[in-house]
Amino acid sequence: MKSILLIGQSNMAGRGFIADVEPIYNEHIHMLRNGRWQMMAEPLHSDRQIAGIGPAASFAQAWTEDHPGESIGLIPCAEGGSSIDEWDIEGVLVRHAISEVSFARETSELIGILWHQGESDSYGDRYKTYENKLILLCRHLRNVFNRPDLPIMIGELGSYLGKRGWGKHAVQFKEINRILSQVAHTEHNCYYVSSTDLTANPDGIHLDALSLRRFGLRYYEAFSKQQHVLDRLDGEEEWIEKRSIRTLSKNEYIYIQNTKLALGELSYDEYMSKIAELGL
Amino acid sequence: MKSILLIGQSNMAGRGFIADVEPIYNEHIHMLRNGRWQMMAEPLHSDRQIAGIGPAASFAQAWTEDHPGESIGLIPCAEGGSSIDEWDIEGVLVRHAISEVSFARETSELIGILWHQGESDSYGDRYKTYENKLILLCRHLRNVFNRPDLPIMIGELGSYLGKRGWGKHAVQFKEINRILSQVAHTEHNCYYVSSTDLTANPDGIHLDALSLRRFGLRYYEAFSKQQHVLDRLDGEEEWIEKRSIRTLSKNEYIYIQNTKLALGELSYDEYMSKIAELGL
Repeated sequence: MKSILLIGQSNMAGRGFIADVEPIYNEHIHMLRNGRWQMMAEPLHSDRQIAGIGPAASFAQAWTEDHPGESIGLIPCAEGGSSIDEWDIEGVLVRHAISEVSFARETSELIGILWHQGESDSYGDRYKTYENKLILLCRHLRNVFNRPDLPIMIGELGSYLGKRGWGKHAVQFKEINRILSQVAHTEHNCYYVSSTDLTANPDGIHLDALSLRRFGLRYYEAFSKQQHVLDRLDGEEEWIEKRSIRTLSKNEYIYIQNTKLALGELSYDEYMSKIAELGL
Repeated sequence: MKSILLIGQSNMAGRGFIADVEPIYNEHIHMLRNGRWQMMAEPLHSDRQIAGIGPAASFAQAWTEDHPGESIGLIPCAEGGSSIDEWDIEGVLVRHAISEVSFARETSELIGILWHQGESDSYGDRYKTYENKLILLCRHLRNVFNRPDLPIMIGELGSYLGKRGWGKHAVQFKEINRILSQVAHTEHNCYYVSSTDLTANPDGIHLDALSLRRFGLRYYEAFSKQQHVLDRLDGEEEWIEKRSIRTLSKNEYIYIQNTKLALGELSYDEYMSKIAELGL
């Protein structure tokens, strides 16, 4: 199995409303829990009670379509509200992410890192010292993982920032984006991922669920083509629409029925008749 | 800060329906996320998408009432469906739990372990080899943590097992309970926690939310009195009812408003007027 590390702040963790998009259930997409893999279900992160849809699910879905029969595992280590200083290489977040990756690597090969962070550094001239901190983090992780060429995808902050709600104070997001782009363009095997046309929840800071599905596709485009993605992709909405009518495998179908029974949405008799319909 | 490790299978992780009980928000109760502490919100575990209410929240609430001004942190490491063999001391679950505890101990003192497990071993004569495995686990954890007297609270399996739904196959739960009780009574500083009168969700295997609130109080009674709890406690329902009308602190109130804004349940203007009401 291949694996991907997810780090950054809330828009990597994901705050898209679960009800706003069709769920992605795919038995070839896994998530790390208690050091082990299980089939992914969103929310993938649990950094906050409000965790929801993030960019990683559509990234992984696109990956599986390019790698039939193979599996990918997602390692959720993003932390809502975290600043670049909290991603100091000696800090808890970095050491914990390295620890999680070490469990993941017992049974997978790490093939990339998705990074989305900067809202918490978009004020008070913090951008002036951001570049070196991000470069240090990238080099440290590659060094610790002994993967000097590990691809790192760096997402652009949303252009809705600086205007309203919790996003109102992020007035220097353009300065942070300039640094993010610069790091992505100068560090080898780093790729920049555009947030063009992506929109926010009513809180003014968190990407909405549909935008995060689109963002994940762009992260995958950057990863798979090994190039910067500087604009929206053709056919993003069509891709998302098409996946919502994907036929479930038996394992995926059973997973969903199990979930419904456990949540009290099905009686045991209803559950058993659903399973019986499969003719297993 | 003090901290408590939570291990076992789904009834320690918690599958009680969130909507069935009043939430517990308490700024003196924390949970470990990405190696750091934050105010607890249920679900405390994220071992499955279906994680819900567990026994730890009412345990912690009762602890804070006995320790005014002090804080407690919960370390969620239970894994749904796990058998005693998956808690082998060389296995991933144990190594991962130890890793999580090491992060927690950077800023807290570990003062106990809550264990609830055995449903997955309640068939096929697995009980015959269960005792030594559980004793080995307890001794191993105390040894690794260098806390030879660390209290370990061991919960009884529910008497609803063996009858219906997913619980139907757990026909040897009484044999497992006999072993659990024996370990609790023979290993020093281990305490048995009764499941008398506790009831299940429609799935027939998971304790319901109200039962888990009651169970947490019993775990705390065993911990605080350092004695076995062999029956229901007086006043469990009254305790739960009383906590549902507890006055929130400012921090707790803000946390809840933040959550509502992030989930789109409040507009930003509504949110701001709620915060303004506090007169901060």
